[in-house]
Amino acid sequence: MTSSAPSHLHPDRLLPASEPAKSIARELYESVKDLPLICPHGHTDPSWFADNQRFPDPASLFLIPDHYVLRMLRSRGISYDDLGVPRRDGGPVADSRSAWQKFAENYYLFAGTPSKTWIDHSFSLAFGIEDELSGDTASQIYDTIDKRLGDADLLPRALLDSFKVEAIATTEFALDDLPHHQKLATDGLIGQVRTTYRPDDVTDASRPAIAENIKKFGELTGEDVTKWDGLINAHRKRREYFRKFGAVATDHGVPTAMTADLEPSEKQALLDKVLAGRHDAVDAELFRAQMLTEMALLSVEDGMVMQIHAGSRRNTDPLLFGERGPDKGADIPGTTDYVGGLQALLGRCGNEPNLNIIMFVLDETTYARELAPMAGYWSSLQIGPPWWFHDSPQGIRRYLDQVVETAGFYNLAGFNDDTRALLSIPARHDVWRREVCRFLGEWTAEHRLSASTATELAKHLSYDAAKAAYHLP
Amino acid sequence: MTSSAPSHLHPDRLLPASEPAKSIARELYESVKDLPLICPHGHTDPSWFADNQRFPDPASLFLIPDHYVLRMLRSRGISYDDLGVPRRDGGPVADSRSAWQKFAENYYLFAGTPSKTWIDHSFSLAFGIEDELSGDTASQIYDTIDKRLGDADLLPRALLDSFKVEAIATTEFALDDLPHHQKLATDGLIGQVRTTYRPDDVTDASRPAIAENIKKFGELTGEDVTKWDGLINAHRKRREYFRKFGAVATDHGVPTAMTADLEPSEKQALLDKVLAGRHDAVDAELFRAQMLTEMALLSVEDGMVMQIHAGSRRNTDPLLFGERGPDKGADIPGTTDYVGGLQALLGRCGNEPNLNIIMFVLDETTYARELAPMAGYWSSLQIGPPWWFHDSPQGIRRYLDQVVETAGFYNLAGFNDDTRALLSIPARHDVWRREVCRFLGEWTAEHRLSASTATELAKHLSYDAAKAAYHLP
Amino acid sequence: MTSSAPSHLHPDRLLPASEPAKSIARELYESVKDLPLICPHGHTDPSWFADNQRFPDPASLFLIPDHYVLRMLRSRGISYDDLGVPRRDGGPVADSRSAWQKFAENYYLFAGTPSKTWIDHSFSLAFGIEDELSGDTASQIYDTIDKRLGDADLLPRALLDSFKVEAIATTEFALDDLPHHQKLATDGLIGQVRTTYRPDDVTDASRPAIAENIKKFGELTGEDVTKWDGLINAHRKRREYFRKFGAVATDHGVPTAMTADLEPSEKQALLDKVLAGRHDAVDAELFRAQMLTEMALLSVEDGMVMQIHAGSRRNTDPLLFGERGPDKGADIPGTTDYVGGLQALLGRCGNEPNLNIIMFVLDETTYARELAPMAGYWSSLQIGPPWWFHDSPQGIRRYLDQVVETAGFYNLAGFNDDTRALLSIPARHDVWRREVCRFLGEWTAEHRLSASTATELAKHLSYDAAKAAYHLP
Repeated sequence: MTSSAPSHLHPDRLLPASEPAKSIARELYESVKDLPLICPHGHTDPSWFADNQRFPDPASLFLIPDHYVLRMLRSRGISYDDLGVPRRDGGPVADSRSAWQKFAENYYLFAGTPSKTWIDHSFSLAFGIEDELSGDTASQIYDTIDKRLGDADLLPRALLDSFKVEAIATTEFALDDLPHHQKLATDGLIGQVRTTYRPDDVTDASRPAIAENIKKFGELTGEDVTKWDGLINAHRKRREYFRKFGAVATDHGVPTAMTADLEPSEKQALLDKVLAGRHDAVDAELFRAQMLTEMALLSVEDGMVMQIHAGSRRNTDPLLFGERGPDKGADIPGTTDYVGGLQALLGRCGNEPNLNIIMFVLDETTYARELAPMAGYWSSLQIGPPWWFHDSPQGIRRYLDQVVETAGFYNLAGFNDDTRALLSIPARHDVWRREVCRFLGEWTAEHRLSASTATELAKHLSYDAAKAAYHLP
Repeated sequence: MTSSAPSHLHPDRLLPASEPAKSIARELYESVKDLPLICPHGHTDPSWFADNQRFPDPASLFLIPDHYVLRMLRSRGISYDDLGVPRRDGGPVADSRSAWQKFAENYYLFAGTPSKTWIDHSFSLAFGIEDELSGDTASQIYDTIDKRLGDADLLPRALLDSFKVEAIATTEFALDDLPHHQKLATDGLIGQVRTTYRPDDVTDASRPAIAENIKKFGELTGEDVTKWDGLINAHRKRREYFRKFGAVATDHGVPTAMTADLEPSEKQALLDKVLAGRHDAVDAELFRAQMLTEMALLSVEDGMVMQIHAGSRRNTDPLLFGERGPDKGADIPGTTDYVGGLQALLGRCGNEPNLNIIMFVLDETTYARELAPMAGYWSSLQIGPPWWFHDSPQGIRRYLDQVVETAGFYNLAGFNDDTRALLSIPARHDVWRREVCRFLGEWTAEHRLSASTATELAKHLSYDAAKAAYHLP
Repeated sequence: MTSSAPSHLHPDRLLPASEPAKSIARELYESVKDLPLICPHGHTDPSWFADNQRFPDPASLFLIPDHYVLRMLRSRGISYDDLGVPRRDGGPVADSRSAWQKFAENYYLFAGTPSKTWIDHSFSLAFGIEDELSGDTASQIYDTIDKRLGDADLLPRALLDSFKVEAIATTEFALDDLPHHQKLATDGLIGQVRTTYRPDDVTDASRPAIAENIKKFGELTGEDVTKWDGLINAHRKRREYFRKFGAVATDHGVPTAMTADLEPSEKQALLDKVLAGRHDAVDAELFRAQMLTEMALLSVEDGMVMQIHAGSRRNTDPLLFGERGPDKGADIPGTTDYVGGLQALLGRCGNEPNLNIIMFVLDETTYARELAPMAGYWSSLQIGPPWWFHDSPQGIRRYLDQVVETAGFYNLAGFNDDTRALLSIPARHDVWRREVCRFLGEWTAEHRLSASTATELAKHLSYDAAKAAYHLP
């Protein structure tokens, strides 16, 4: 064991360990590591960029909002109360500093996880911290971070610039008024910051508030949403509104990839049921399935890229959901049938030249069996980067292994960081770029790609592909 | 990036890039690379070998019939009209040379795909072309190929010999009269060229023409095919007829692996329905399922090897199918249950010593979970090589990774090229041999196989296994 | 091919073949190879340790009881009669020496399989045999083994000590009186040898004897098992009895991961049906599903670790089952839904701090998609080591590849040998340790782990994790 430098900072991390792939990959990585970042899908808070205020304390930045981190600590018996995660009943939870101490004492649990890579990288890049987080270093690191957070170069807009973020998209629901993006427009920042149209609030009929939401949607757009055509027209108007604030894409979070293509009378009957609250689970799924096809048809009209994030079973722990609400770590992937699921949508408009659907996948068994063959046929389909638990070194390796040969490199949509954690953005893109260069380096070393093709592809996958997939200028 | 030679021609391509596996694999490859080719399953056109005429122009050879190539171009928005793919309505499509130009301009899309490997290898082997296909080189390469196609050494029979094809099987339907094989018999070529009995035309009741086909089947064989026993006897006779033209195997293309073992009265009732056109989708599946078991029972009688190609969902794009028919790139794999599916067949005759079923798989999740355990138990089951999208370097790596430990090397059926593209045959076998030697080289370098065992296995998997699996002399 | 030493004995076997990972992995392996063995789950015969008699002849030791070996030989057409496997009808089968000869002549079939690794290792470790088993060496190796079996150092208790087995658990059914463990208690060996509570005989209502078994269960415990609470109390008492003989865990062999959480009246109605023999397959599954939840609730009470071995389809060959009974090689894995299956159990008690469930998996597609995300959230869930066909070098590689990033290292339960073959125990742990060190060595070489973390994790996964997961002292 020759290396004594901290593992997370080694300049060759994740690259092949042996020659000749090592040198090839390193050279490729040098050529892409400083390219600007394209962040066409994510969940950063637009108020950060609109208000440009200092981030709160370290725990609120690195711990409380990060469900990857929270879930791992919980899995080893650490309570969310002790980690300072707010309760719905307003009951007391640990304060920021003691939650941080608990986190630090258990940071060894993250050995080998992407979370550790992202956090270590963030610590180093933004705060110059090279010590390993632990019970011993917890307090000192807390102070270092807390002190730096007020510095001008750590304010949100400055970070976008220093991270070389050329474009970043946030994600807002259809009923959102986009107040922060209005402010960003006033300040001339739309373009670098963009919204995304995510109409789950008015397309997911499994939500208790669905009828109320659709009613609001009608009021917001002046459309008669009790009629199917009016409902679609409301979407049409709202998509136009979002495009004013930079939106180039829509996004759809769905448990399955099911789509439908119903007759007009069937659609109206379904809407009637939903608005009357008479729909059951099967109706709800059918409504969502039909709405996906409607969104695709609107994309054919207006050219917005359609993102489908399919396959998560949400809120699998009722106790957690009752105590603290959604997005706290209890969402678990399931199997997904893309061929059967997308059949109705693709049969209706899959050959439209103006349509670009990007599929995000949690069921890796579909990479080689379904997604790569589909993306390698349909002009309207691209495969998004590895998502969620699979946005990791091994996840990226399995992805490239399984999709490239059948889909080719040019049916991939490049990288998405898909994060709520602003500071992790450079780390996530860096892991992707290192893994891409590793992959291309290995294939070049095996004489499967020429050196010049590998160089082109490294840039394509690190930068150009995402711009092209999302039609970014 | 030290290498400047074209990637597709490097003598060490696909072999391990690092020592010591590299030298071991290279030595293994040297020992097998010139072995004759056994091609026991494929879709070359028997008229080529019967008539021995020159191949038409380059586009008709490399582009129009290759659904791998067409689908990738379509996936990036290139229309089949512009690629010269014939329309059912007889409408105009691009001529050969302009289609070729379009293909060449977009050839960069194939970086990293098996198609590029096969095409580059064919260009080099048959035509001495070492330039990369591109918009710039399109015309010159077209002319080079076109000029050479009339040369005696590029006529089909000469190619079989120069490729060292010891045996090649074509695939014909049950109703086929085998006129080309009759000619080949006259010319003494049966043995090097063989037919295969693929009775899907009379076993797949989802086809509109099924009743008519079964009627023809009765006329062809003189059997009363309105009775179940007569139908089976018709198969018995037809299999015998095919064996006269070298057939050693049957082949069955099925969407699932479902089999059945019905009572005689149930079988007759099912046949009555099918002949009367009163069957629904469930009946059609049951008919196909029962016919698989019947085919296995006939194999027990006559010793023909039974090939099952399961798991493709055909013609998933109705627009394409309407415009240009089947086999144009819109077939997509799905999940397959082999344990449940084959239960009826194996329960009926799985222990018969005379039975050899070779399973071809599109759902890689079944390799380690179902197929390897089944092939490692049933004497009647072998695992075919990676098929279709998985006939690729990564596909072969995933296959060997997942099947060998449980099935052993001796329950594998060696390699099949399964191609419609005669010129790609040497390239496909070469990729398999390189990957086998890579795998054996790595395992030898890890001291998991002795050098002598690796040498034996390299030959076995490159040549002997296919001969043994298909009972070829 | 430089190496001429027998492959199975090379000191670097399975470690990375190339530097720098090779040296790192080798150093890690040196640090763990001699650690004591923790064997918390397996199927060795407790009478061996109780009676401490010499093992019978070589075939009875290495061939007849090993379904891995039998199935592979059968798959190549060798009959179980010729291998000496007893018939239910008492018909003649080959004697030990001629069965051994048949095995040896076909030993080449095991190239690349874990069986060969374990057997070669056992031959070398226990008998000093370095020759390869073959038709030529069969007789001499038979004699060598047979002669040594009577030596004092090859008696079962001596082997436990020389193998450094710190603790080994056997597995007994709920109705078992544990006579061998009673003898072991008298001899002061409980602790080194332990039982495990496997109540499938009274929880699996698909068994013909279920009603009779439950009746016996009532007699054994003095509980009224016709009432649901009495049935649960009978388990409560029986678990306590097993704990007297060292049991720290329960074990449950189930075809699916389905659990249920019924109302009291539903439970009683289900029990009434089962006891009256009026239950169908759906009832039987529901009974089993509910009993899993009951077992979890009892584990919350008494702290016993709960092992779930899910996903095997048993006895898929009716002919074999009729001729020779279960566990002869015809059990085949199937797909398993862990998220849906465990929902009822986890919803009921998944957050209980006292609960530890270890999941054993045959459907590798669930590693990254379901198991790792679940173990990385629920404090009550850990992932067991690769099981059965996946307890192999490639199986361990796929496992570590897919679980570590999301579950972390500390949600893994270490290693289980899960074997009926006492002599294979050191070989199996050795493969696991080599593969763990290979994995950690590669990640260290890629600068993903520090050298000190890798050293800690090597020991953790080789020894500490299993002790901790099973609460062993």
